[in-house]
Amino acid sequence: MDRGNAFAANCPTRQLLDRVADKWSVLVLLILGDGDMRFGGLKRRVEGVSQKMLSQTLRSLERDGLVTREVTPTMPVMVTYGITPLGRELLSALRSMIDWAETSMVKVVAAQRSYDARP
Amino acid sequence: MDRGNAFAANCPTRQLLDRVADKWSVLVLLILGDGDMRFGGLKRRVEGVSQKMLSQTLRSLERDGLVTREVTPTMPVMVTYGITPLGRELLSALRSMIDWAETSMVKVVAAQRSYDARP
Repeated sequence: MDRGNAFAANCPTRQLLDRVADKWSVLVLLILGDGDMRFGGLKRRVEGVSQKMLSQTLRSLERDGLVTREVTPTMPVMVTYGITPLGRELLSALRSMIDWAETSMVKVVAAQRSYDARP
Repeated sequence: MDRGNAFAANCPTRQLLDRVADKWSVLVLLILGDGDMRFGGLKRRVEGVSQKMLSQTLRSLERDGLVTREVTPTMPVMVTYGITPLGRELLSALRSMIDWAETSMVKVVAAQRSYDARP
């Protein structure tokens, strides 16, 4: 099987969609696309993410081959995250979604107001 | 403000990202992109979604102005869902992500196996 079917519950593509259609993953990939970063730096950039959620997100992204984790044996140990070529492919696929979200926000907020004002 | 900042926790773009970076929304938009459909039809197409989750997803998408809900006063009432022009814009932005997920699945599964095999 060379191509998955995201509609099938048991297809790995569905699990992949769980990952890529996840806001924390998207935000982390966006940041690492601009350059390597340490855990603390990522935590500061992604407002509102918990330590636990960021750790889980990074571990999943590393397991999926989208992010690298490099340990430098200093004291204390320094851990740097980066993006893989596969992660960069995903990032460029995601870029149009992010662009849409950032530019269409105004229209969506207007739609929400009109929905909430319904009798 | 004409353009949002998805990294800021209090920016509406972040909330929008929550919505669009959600697998159920993505799958529903993909289906409605091919034509209007009733609730039962959607439920059958999106394997593994619960009645409650599908209702919530459709309500959010309708509130965001991405999906229409049309009630035909038959007995019993017939409810049909469709995609709005704004929803179609998002869908075309999402298409490259879906394509990536369906074609890169094999590489991701290989990365996961190699991660899981680490000592």
